[in-house]
This record gives sequence, structure tokens and C-alpha cells, in this order.
Amino acid sequence: MNLKQDYLFLIHFARAYALAAYKSRSLADLRQAHEGLKAIVDLELGLHVDYCREWGISETELEALPEARATLAYTRYVLDTGHRGDLLDLHVALAPCVIGYGEVADWINQRPTTVRGEANPFDAWIGMYESEEFRAAMTAEREWIDARLAGATPERFDELVTVFRDATRLEIDFWAMGLEERE
Amino acid sequence: MNLKQDYLFLIHFARAYALAAYKSRSLADLRQAHEGLKAIVDLELGLHVDYCREWGISETELEALPEARATLAYTRYVLDTGHRGDLLDLHVALAPCVIGYGEVADWINQRPTTVRGEANPFDAWIGMYESEEFRAAMTAEREWIDARLAGATPERFDELVTVFRDATRLEIDFWAMGLEERE
Amino acid sequence: MNLKQDYLFLIHFARAYALAAYKSRSLADLRQAHEGLKAIVDLELGLHVDYCREWGISETELEALPEARATLAYTRYVLDTGHRGDLLDLHVALAPCVIGYGEVADWINQRPTTVRGEANPFDAWIGMYESEEFRAAMTAEREWIDARLAGATPERFDELVTVFRDATRLEIDFWAMGLEERE
Amino acid sequence: MNLKQDYLFLIHFARAYALAAYKSRSLADLRQAHEGLKAIVDLELGLHVDYCREWGISETELEALPEARATLAYTRYVLDTGHRGDLLDLHVALAPCVIGYGEVADWINQRPTTVRGEANPFDAWIGMYESEEFRAAMTAEREWIDARLAGATPERFDELVTVFRDATRLEIDFWAMGLEERE
Repeated sequence: MNLKQDYLFLIHFARAYALAAYKSRSLADLRQAHEGLKAIVDLELGLHVDYCREWGISETELEALPEARATLAYTRYVLDTGHRGDLLDLHVALAPCVIGYGEVADWINQRPTTVRGEANPFDAWIGMYESEEFRAAMTAEREWIDARLAGATPERFDELVTVFRDATRLEIDFWAMGLEERE
Repeated sequence: MNLKQDYLFLIHFARAYALAAYKSRSLADLRQAHEGLKAIVDLELGLHVDYCREWGISETELEALPEARATLAYTRYVLDTGHRGDLLDLHVALAPCVIGYGEVADWINQRPTTVRGEANPFDAWIGMYESEEFRAAMTAEREWIDARLAGATPERFDELVTVFRDATRLEIDFWAMGLEERE
Repeated sequence: MNLKQDYLFLIHFARAYALAAYKSRSLADLRQAHEGLKAIVDLELGLHVDYCREWGISETELEALPEARATLAYTRYVLDTGHRGDLLDLHVALAPCVIGYGEVADWINQRPTTVRGEANPFDAWIGMYESEEFRAAMTAEREWIDARLAGATPERFDELVTVFRDATRLEIDFWAMGLEERE
Repeated sequence: MNLKQDYLFLIHFARAYALAAYKSRSLADLRQAHEGLKAIVDLELGLHVDYCREWGISETELEALPEARATLAYTRYVLDTGHRGDLLDLHVALAPCVIGYGEVADWINQRPTTVRGEANPFDAWIGMYESEEFRAAMTAEREWIDARLAGATPERFDELVTVFRDATRLEIDFWAMGLEERE
């Protein structure tokens, strides 16, 4: 199920990067947002469509897919947060995904029980989040957010903590959707 | 729990009517959206804050409330649908609430087992959805939507069916949140 | 001409207050934005439609009016600034109107050559900006903005200066439209 | 002056394509909007920055540029039209640029007095709008709009005519800005 929902998730995350491009005030921010959008549209969505095809799921089927509640909740929260606030709100709402996945991959790797290589069906997944490209994007994102948090008032910081907490809860639900179905 | 979450729900539905006012192209649409916003801000939110106070819940506590997942999912879906599409998309996303509650009240009233009056703790709730004001707003909403659906192409109608179906699913989850906690 | 364009200006300023309501994060901000919207929809637009009727201009005619370039430029700049940034950006874009008109009225009153009373066809206009209601709204707006500017970093302050400067230029053009046509 | 303002124009048109990507409902629409954004960010903005550098204008100078009124008016009208309406409104607001420039190039070429080649300082400009890439994009845009106009009700068509007319007026003003200064 998550394989299919990931497709819908990617579509809405592409929309979130597009919103970030729309909200940009500098050419640097516009370019950064565009790189995120490009990575999804030109690369990740294509890989995902190919991958689904291998599992017998066509692009037409993907387009007609009903969205799961967890997908709706997470993606629309990110998008509304971007419209309601400023570009920093949107980045903080995206952080559980953009930065969080790298953190999770690190944590998995540091566990003594983690098996890598062909014996682990998720090895490629962990590998992607170890890739140089992903680490560079993750570091850039963290630096961008940190630079802006440095000037935030305590009230503003509290608002952003709420955004990060809510987005993280909804990201957890999105993962749990896959786990719950498996068992 | 739903009593508190209803407060957050009302805030975001006020934001949805504000978005409808923003998107309006005619003075008639602007006025209609404003009436919806005014009903929430000047009337319903006040009643709700008063009502919560009776149950020992202060306005400060309401403001600090973490949002339940079902509240986040439903309200943000409506808001993003409004931004993504046009004013009709937004109205259709609001319809499960604006028209649906009246339908539910009618259905409850028509059941032979329904008890009205003081013996039913929800009697006032059913009463509100029978009130002349609510029925007038519900009828106006249905007529507004029907007038626009009359000119919709089949493709457009399908898009709106998806919006209505998803909003209805999320509305059901919002109600279920109360039921699940009770048991 | 400005009499008619003012009608269109009011419609779009109503949309700007609606956008402020949409973007609000606290009930206090939502209520404040709603008061601004209500003042336009329930009061100012009605007065304006009445006033135009006296001059032989019907509401239908007002609705069909082509928008002047200066109206398009000013109002859409305010609206896009609100979407691109946060609620403070939107308030700063509105300030040349909300605070500026009161400042202009004060400046006119302090000039030794200013004539008040029936001899001045604009006496009612100056009077409105002297009214207790307007002064209260103007003061509230200034305090709201000042409270938020207090915590702004220099970079953020510069962004807001650009917004204020551009909105003021476009507000001046809107006034100039009337002057140029008269002569 | 237009050379510098074109830079700002491109930034806001990139934001308009980003908004189109945000508003997309199908992967096809998302990809199409992304191609428009990519063409500006990865190609046109770079060419423009290079071109300005040849004329002694640095990227820093471009970023600090005050926006001309005609630039503000046109770009913000397009952006607000996209937020207020749906994806078709946004495309129609972009059409005077996306389709119009090709039409203008054709019209210039068909005039007996038009000189092509090195004797015409704008020869490269006309050439760009004759290029296969531009003609393909222009044709795709026209077909996209025509397909949607086919199902539009007369009321909807009138709304879109207003959008097209207003966007065209503001596009003309943008060009006139260059002419007026030259003379």
C-alpha cells in the first residue's frame, strides 16, 4: 500500500516545493526550491513509476488511486502551513521528511542488529539516504533553516516548534500506515 | 475531546470561509463567504468558548490545544483544495459539513427510535440543525453548488466527486474520533 | 473615475482582509482581520454603492467596470505580497492605506491654507479620517505592526521596507489617477 | 531599463509557473508547469544574467533593483489571478506572454518593411520566437487552453475574456515602458 501512496505523497511534495518556489524572495531561494521540485518530477516520480510498473501497477492506476487518510493529512498540512505562514514555516514543515529520513537512516545504521547488503530487503533504501546527493541536500536544508532560526524571537520559535511537531506526528502516521497493514 | 477539537475545527473553517471571500469574483459571492465567516467568528466561536468555560476549559487552554490528527486532516484538506482549485472546489469540500449536518439531523429525526426532548442529551444539537437559519444557509449552499454543477463537463464533475468523497471520508473520521474515545 | 475605481479597490481590499483572516494563527488576529473585512463588506461597500447610486451609477454598472491600471497594480501587489510572505508582510502592504490616510488627513488639517466645513467639498472625507472609529483602527494597526517589528532582524526589516515603499508608490499612483483625469 | 526589468519579470513569471505546478491536478499538468519553470530558472534567467553582465550590470545589482510600476502591475495581476481562480485562469493570464510573443513575431515578419539579419538589432529576438522550441511550447499552450475552453459555459468564458483582456493591457504597458523611455 505504501508503495502506491508514496506516489501520491511525491505529487504533493512536488506541489510543496512548487509553493516554496512561488514564495521565494531571492533568486537563491527560487533556485533551491526548483532543485527540490526538479528532483521529484524529473527523477523520483519517474523512478517510482518504473518501480511500480515492475510490480504490475500502471501509471493510469496510480493516477486513479484513492488517497489514504495518512497521505491526505500529512501532505495537506505541509501545504496549508506554507500558505498560512512564510517560506520558513514551509521549510520547517518539510524538515521531518527532508532531514528526518537521513537521521532515521543513520540511527538504523548505528544499531548493532542492523544487517546490510542483500540479506536486508531495505538495503537500497538505507543506501539512498547515505548517498552523497542526499547528504548534500540534507545539509543544505539544515543550514538554511538554522540561519533563519538564529534570528527568530522566542514567540516565533514556538510557532515553528508546533509546525515541526505536527508535521512529525503526521510523518510518523504515514509510516505507520505501512506497518499496520503488514501485520 | 471533540468539544475541544471543535474549537480548532471552527478556527480552520473560519479560515476556509475567509479563503472563499478571497477567491470571490462577484460581490454576491464575497458577501456570502463573509456571512459564513461572520457566523463562525461573531457567533459560533463565542458560543463555543462560553460552552467550554462551563466545562472548565479556558480560552487560553483552547488556544494551546494540540490538534488531533482527524482535525488536521479534514481542515487542511479543505483549505488546500480551495487553493489548488477554484471557489467551486472549496464549496464542494465544505459541503459535507455545511449540507451534510442538516442531512444527518433529518436522518436522525426520521428514525423511529430517535428520542427528542430532555431525555436526549443531543436534543439541542439536532435542534440547531432544524433551525430556520441553518436550513436557509443549507438551502442557499445547495442552490449555489447546483447552479455551478449544471454547467460542469463530465471531467470536471469527476474532479468534484473526488473532492466531495475525500472531504466526506475525513468528516467521518472527525466524528469517529469522538466515538472511539468514548468507548 | 476614482469614485468608480474606489469600488473595485474596496472589493480587493476586502479580499486582502480575507487573506489576513486566512493567514491568522491566533483567534485575536482572526478577529482583527475579520473586523477589517466586516467594515468593508457591511459598511463601506454599502455606503459606496449608495453614494454611486446618487451619482447615477448602478451596482450592475460597478460590477462590469474595467479596472484601471493603477487599481490593478496596487491591489494585486498587496494580495501577492500576502501570499508570498506572512501576515506581517500583508499588514505592511496594507499600511499605506490603513495608517497612511489618517496621516494625510492630519497633514491636511495642519496646513494653514486648509479650509474646513461646507466650503470644502472634501470636508466629509477629512472628517471620516478624524472619526474615533478610524483613529482607533489606525492606532491598533500601528501597535500590531510595531510589536512585530520590534523582534525583526535587520534583513527582515529591509524586506518590509521594500514592501512598504512599493505599496506606497502604488497608493500614490492610485491617487494620481484621479488628479490626472481632472486636469 | 527594460533589460533590467525583464530580469524581475522573469523572476515573477518563474513564480507563476511554480504556482501552476502547485495547482496541478494531474501529473501531466505538473510536468508541463515544471517545464515552464525549468526553462526560466535553468535557461532564461542564466542567459539574462550573462547578458546583463556584458552590459556591466551585476547579479547583485539586478537583485537590488526597484521594480517598475508596469512590472509590478503585470506580474502581480497574473499571480493573484492564479490564486483567485483555477489553473485555467492562470494559463489565460499567462497567454499574452506565452502565445502573444509568437503572434507578435509572426506579425513583424509578415510586414513588408521588416528587415531581418544584422541590420536589425532585434533580429535575434525575432529569431528566438521563430525557434522550434518556442513554437512547440506555444502550440502546446494553445492546445491546452483550447481543450479546456471547449467545455466552458458562456459565463465562464466571459470571466476568462476579462482575465485575458486585463493581462494583455498590462503586457502592453510593460512594453510601452521601454518605448517611452527610449524616446
